[in-house]
Amino acid sequence: MLEKLKKEVYEANMLLPEYNLVTFTWGNVSGIDREKGLFVIKPSGVPYNELSSDNMVVVDLNGNTVEGDYNPSSDTATHAILYNRFPKIGGIVHTHSTWATSWAQSGRNIPCYGTTHADYIYGEIPCVRNLTQKEIDEAYEKNTGILIAEEFERRKQDYAATPAVLCKNHGPFTWGKDPEAAVHNAVVLEKVAQMAFNCEMINSDVRPVPQEMMDKHYNRKFGPNAYYGQIKNSK
Amino acid sequence: MLEKLKKEVYEANMLLPEYNLVTFTWGNVSGIDREKGLFVIKPSGVPYNELSSDNMVVVDLNGNTVEGDYNPSSDTATHAILYNRFPKIGGIVHTHSTWATSWAQSGRNIPCYGTTHADYIYGEIPCVRNLTQKEIDEAYEKNTGILIAEEFERRKQDYAATPAVLCKNHGPFTWGKDPEAAVHNAVVLEKVAQMAFNCEMINSDVRPVPQEMMDKHYNRKFGPNAYYGQIKNSK
Amino acid sequence: MLEKLKKEVYEANMLLPEYNLVTFTWGNVSGIDREKGLFVIKPSGVPYNELSSDNMVVVDLNGNTVEGDYNPSSDTATHAILYNRFPKIGGIVHTHSTWATSWAQSGRNIPCYGTTHADYIYGEIPCVRNLTQKEIDEAYEKNTGILIAEEFERRKQDYAATPAVLCKNHGPFTWGKDPEAAVHNAVVLEKVAQMAFNCEMINSDVRPVPQEMMDKHYNRKFGPNAYYGQIKNSK
Amino acid sequence: MLEKLKKEVYEANMLLPEYNLVTFTWGNVSGIDREKGLFVIKPSGVPYNELSSDNMVVVDLNGNTVEGDYNPSSDTATHAILYNRFPKIGGIVHTHSTWATSWAQSGRNIPCYGTTHADYIYGEIPCVRNLTQKEIDEAYEKNTGILIAEEFERRKQDYAATPAVLCKNHGPFTWGKDPEAAVHNAVVLEKVAQMAFNCEMINSDVRPVPQEMMDKHYNRKFGPNAYYGQIKNSK
Repeated sequence: MLEKLKKEVYEANMLLPEYNLVTFTWGNVSGIDREKGLFVIKPSGVPYNELSSDNMVVVDLNGNTVEGDYNPSSDTATHAILYNRFPKIGGIVHTHSTWATSWAQSGRNIPCYGTTHADYIYGEIPCVRNLTQKEIDEAYEKNTGILIAEEFERRKQDYAATPAVLCKNHGPFTWGKDPEAAVHNAVVLEKVAQMAFNCEMINSDVRPVPQEMMDKHYNRKFGPNAYYGQIKNSK
Repeated sequence: MLEKLKKEVYEANMLLPEYNLVTFTWGNVSGIDREKGLFVIKPSGVPYNELSSDNMVVVDLNGNTVEGDYNPSSDTATHAILYNRFPKIGGIVHTHSTWATSWAQSGRNIPCYGTTHADYIYGEIPCVRNLTQKEIDEAYEKNTGILIAEEFERRKQDYAATPAVLCKNHGPFTWGKDPEAAVHNAVVLEKVAQMAFNCEMINSDVRPVPQEMMDKHYNRKFGPNAYYGQIKNSK
Repeated sequence: MLEKLKKEVYEANMLLPEYNLVTFTWGNVSGIDREKGLFVIKPSGVPYNELSSDNMVVVDLNGNTVEGDYNPSSDTATHAILYNRFPKIGGIVHTHSTWATSWAQSGRNIPCYGTTHADYIYGEIPCVRNLTQKEIDEAYEKNTGILIAEEFERRKQDYAATPAVLCKNHGPFTWGKDPEAAVHNAVVLEKVAQMAFNCEMINSDVRPVPQEMMDKHYNRKFGPNAYYGQIKNSK
Repeated sequence: MLEKLKKEVYEANMLLPEYNLVTFTWGNVSGIDREKGLFVIKPSGVPYNELSSDNMVVVDLNGNTVEGDYNPSSDTATHAILYNRFPKIGGIVHTHSTWATSWAQSGRNIPCYGTTHADYIYGEIPCVRNLTQKEIDEAYEKNTGILIAEEFERRKQDYAATPAVLCKNHGPFTWGKDPEAAVHNAVVLEKVAQMAFNCEMINSDVRPVPQEMMDKHYNRKFGPNAYYGQIKNSK
């Protein structure tokens, strides 16, 4: 069942240690088959060196396991909500990567300070508030997903153009057109978070990149007349 | 004598360089056989690439060597006290890992700023005071252990839920149900120390994670209804 | 066509990941044949592990592709202008390396704080302003090159002695007598940027290296009586 | 000539890249034969992967080359002075290692903030002033050595107990009983410099380690009743 997607999700999961985004089992990647309405996700708490395509777990859009010998990631309900609310995405990543998590712990949005950020992520990266006691008790992981989706709506921010978010005191989620693209955005986020930290220390009066430069860089990669790379990019 | 435990302690010691927690010989791991009342510890000042199960040293709970060709770690008396005072632990780690030691040198407790911390270590990580001249002269390493145990009692903090401590101007000790778990907590501590540093720099008004979120994350891993991973976790 | 130069440019490009200066495809190296008035540059957006001498692109000094199956780097027009305006250089590098980019994002010149900097780069490393909306719309990459050249003229700074620049909110360019030398200067810049960051944090009143010491170090490597190394160095 | 020492010096030089203390050729190690009054040092500007025992250079205590096909390190005159003024040392290291150089650039002594420092280096690590124009013009490298020796005399600091110094706006020198011990101290210095940076950022009111604790740690390694390791340590 969904063998090709399982392989893709497995391989995307294995990119997390390769890009130095995880310690132990602190991360997970999922990918969706939109036609079947099912997604595939890493099993919970299984070390990366024990993963294989075969132990990936198949889950439906209500977060219920459909196939698999293992429990799915404890963050599965968050993934399910994001797939429901963000219909254009094909893959999701959660990690505790050092720099992105440090910004999440600080409770601040990451301003767009340069073209490295603007090349892939349009505008600042939002940091959503803590869940309330009630939201935690009711359904912690599910409400995390709802909070993220509502924050993008409240800000009128396009989730496809800004494929990253920070959960306060917790860590980041990123997404993309498929699992590998979601990992790509997790790498970008980590690097951008590190450089935003550095440049605020170098210049406490640093200002975000000017709007016209942000637009230029985003559009030369993803705009209608994109000219970066060999073919038109899509997210 | 205690061949299985020696192997376990040897392998846990070898994890320290693998996880980048030691420079030269600046670290040691021990593990205890509670039935026999003996523990096994790394020999003092022996390079990691010369270690083997065979040169591990067997020590009794008074810190006296029972078997072994080498002197035990110079921190053996600290380990002995901690095994005496913390009856539920099975392994202890001491390192001079960069970030945890930096916090120890600063003399500050590490606040719980996020779920990476809350997932494994309940509440802030205490930093115990310097020993006095008298305590140093009398029995430096032994009194270090006593100071740690007394600090947990004074704070009414459960050592099993908070398996890490900083010794001021010195460095960290961590523990766990066995030597490998103690190393796992040393890795968590190092990462948590690094991210706490970062997030204080990003936001000088950062606040600890709310109580309800700390409880949620700790309990989803170690509480009575834990659901992280494939089986119920224990420390 | 230009097979030897293509190989040289290919090999210099492959040094970027080796020296840890690039993430994904965020960097490019070019090298020029001054006699033919043609330069060779990395193709745009092609992963480093898919590069070979054969997919390097040959471009003329107006930035037009002369030979190659791929689109040249999106920064080609910047390289073309720099080759036109800086007649003594033989190679150019652009990266988003972490520390140099952090300084670029902060909008500050990098002061010369030590001999590591003075050994290779004379005086402070300029950070040029953002392009205006008009300059961006007209010809973003070309105007980036013009801005860099004009800044060196305005400052009466010798581009051969100061082979590095930062573009505000974007990242660094370095150059040298050939592609490998340009990569060498990119490595120096990254290290110098990191240590300048550190030393400002250690001492907020830090002063640049005294003029006489800057001259001494630069001249023992590149002056008329240079005595560093086995032969007279040239840039 | 001095084949055994050449091999020892060669191997100590190769430890610099292994311990990540050098970029390119920015470092050198020497070792002395006290009976013959000759020392062996790395050739100037030769890449580490081209070094061998055979291209080490033999120099007398006036800094004149006695044997070797290459020019000796440009810092040879500094090494010669230090061997003359510090009769108990057997090896010297100079690097531009990141953290030690950052402190040197900042112009500050490194306070003793913890036992990692106290275990190997007694008291604060001095940062000597810049040379004057006259001192630079006269004999830059020689006067660097004289300045270091005079600073230890002025401070009445025992060079054998404090085997490290910073040269303002330049970088560190370390020494030891032999070349390998000097490299060991260069590694200690780098780690100590990094943690001193961190702990000042964590707590701007941080205080040096208390005197009694500094004495305890230094003496348990190097004092008359040392008990760290398997045999009595010597520097």
